[in-house]
Amino acid sequence: MRIEASELEEVATALLLNAGAPLAHARLQAENLIYAELTGHPSHGLQRLPRLLDRIAKGLADPRSRGILDLSRPTELHVDGQQGLGPVIALVAIEALLDRVAQYGIAYAAISNSNHLGMMAFYVDTVARAGKICIALSTSEALVHPFGGTRAMLGTNPVAIGIPTTEEPFVLDLATSVVSMGKVHDHALRDVALQSGWALDADGEPTIDPERAKHGSIAPFGDAKGYGLGLAFELLVASLAGSAFAPQVHGTLDARYAANKGDVFVIIDPPHAGLQTQRITDYLAALRRSPPADPRRPVSVPGDGARQRRQVALEHGVDINDTLWTALRERLGKPIPHSPVNQELSS
Amino acid sequence: MRIEASELEEVATALLLNAGAPLAHARLQAENLIYAELTGHPSHGLQRLPRLLDRIAKGLADPRSRGILDLSRPTELHVDGQQGLGPVIALVAIEALLDRVAQYGIAYAAISNSNHLGMMAFYVDTVARAGKICIALSTSEALVHPFGGTRAMLGTNPVAIGIPTTEEPFVLDLATSVVSMGKVHDHALRDVALQSGWALDADGEPTIDPERAKHGSIAPFGDAKGYGLGLAFELLVASLAGSAFAPQVHGTLDARYAANKGDVFVIIDPPHAGLQTQRITDYLAALRRSPPADPRRPVSVPGDGARQRRQVALEHGVDINDTLWTALRERLGKPIPHSPVNQELSS
Repeated sequence: MRIEASELEEVATALLLNAGAPLAHARLQAENLIYAELTGHPSHGLQRLPRLLDRIAKGLADPRSRGILDLSRPTELHVDGQQGLGPVIALVAIEALLDRVAQYGIAYAAISNSNHLGMMAFYVDTVARAGKICIALSTSEALVHPFGGTRAMLGTNPVAIGIPTTEEPFVLDLATSVVSMGKVHDHALRDVALQSGWALDADGEPTIDPERAKHGSIAPFGDAKGYGLGLAFELLVASLAGSAFAPQVHGTLDARYAANKGDVFVIIDPPHAGLQTQRITDYLAALRRSPPADPRRPVSVPGDGARQRRQVALEHGVDINDTLWTALRERLGKPIPHSPVNQELSS
Repeated sequence: MRIEASELEEVATALLLNAGAPLAHARLQAENLIYAELTGHPSHGLQRLPRLLDRIAKGLADPRSRGILDLSRPTELHVDGQQGLGPVIALVAIEALLDRVAQYGIAYAAISNSNHLGMMAFYVDTVARAGKICIALSTSEALVHPFGGTRAMLGTNPVAIGIPTTEEPFVLDLATSVVSMGKVHDHALRDVALQSGWALDADGEPTIDPERAKHGSIAPFGDAKGYGLGLAFELLVASLAGSAFAPQVHGTLDARYAANKGDVFVIIDPPHAGLQTQRITDYLAALRRSPPADPRRPVSVPGDGARQRRQVALEHGVDINDTLWTALRERLGKPIPHSPVNQELSS
């Protein structure tokens, strides 16, 4: 079903308000979920909302919390999220950092006891639009096996990097696994085989059967190098946030435990704004113009695809799973009028 | 030929002293080159010394320079390297950062106009041994094509990350290219075909011929994700150091131009020393004990292999190319006594 983004956001906001979130928190959490829908990442979109609402109902997520901030050293911010919503706690931290970086140059926040962040691009995109560089890291349950190993020992440990240009910001957002566990589940639903090399089963044997892979582990991206980076991010986050390591992490994929992963945001005030920012824009333009391997697929820059998908979805609506949409509207109790847009496109 | 590390270091130091380097600078530059030899990366070892000496002779590298430091914001250090030796300028910057991080939590240095850093592991290893986290980035000449592209537009853009543990530090050091151009040249010398997917020729066509690849470009590691990270590092370094982008970079692979790439070091004072450092050690031990895919190849942690190679090389000497060693000794003018160790091993 194709639904206008504004309607998706209204429903999500209303559900969060009903669950006890203050208006600003409900709107921010909803905006974060819709950002994922608009940029083509439904795995981080509304399908996470029912679980989040369950977590709130069970007291595992506190929609009112703004966390407790400790800025004992000027450029080191520690945030105890007090089980707050991921985007709410992250934005509190980011605002505190933005206050600091103009004076100091660089600052970071390490967050613990906070719920799932959703798309990391959401944060670095926001910060880059405010003219600052942002690097974001987060950890997760153990889903990834080491290079040369057979057991899930690392999180999918995503990294996002946002850098201002004179036009749209550079926005990179990637997991350090070769695919997401969401994609494995999606293949299982559609009964499609995985690509060879993506996953191992619970016995540590290579498998292309998504059902077996669901109980096994995913490979790191880029072999030994990707493993090294994913592991470095695991250690960095645990070291700065004092959070748990992947095999002990829970609370981002379940509605049973408090979230004990960590998040890190580093913000830098670019010292050579102006001329160097223009040079970055020019260099990215030269990259996009450089000769492609396939003439039909020009060279792209991280963030380009997401922006194009967002533009299309804002114009034509978001393609949303019928069952999910029905379930969300039922949860809302008093259903809001059904108004799919561009019905001709979605039929 | 197998030579004791101390003798290699003596010869390198003497050559740098003869070229006008003060003793402390000569020793540091030599130590950096020998670190690469000991850890099994001769591409970053003594084979770079003749070119560095040529650069000094031509005034492209100034072995006396300690750079000009600008700490206008408390945690943002700008260093104009004044064409100094890479390791000398880097260590001046790192010392200034170490002074700051205890007070502020995090600080970074952006370096321009400095010569080649050599192995990046050298720096993050040193800083991690001092109990601090270090992230190092550097840029280079354009050698890597974008994912989906055919022309060299990015540097090999290495990243190194060092994290203290209660035992040996975690030391990651990798280029964001799938292989180094050094490896391509090495394959050309030995007349061995490249692996498919490593390189394109000057016309942008895939090639396994190392001679053709030398004039072409190397692939990023890990497809689109590795490309994204390499590009993010390119932009980060240029943004912070105000340095050139890959297509305009020169001076790290030639003896004709001043070096105009950039280097960035971020240092963080870990806030949860003690207990969390022990947890990092324990987690890395659990990773190493986790079941391997091949029972003969236990899971390893970045830095393990380099440390083992170093131990062996310190005991048995470094295997060094005969022609290179002869050339270095001839450059020295008054040859020091020839004393290969463990002649039985090197024969």
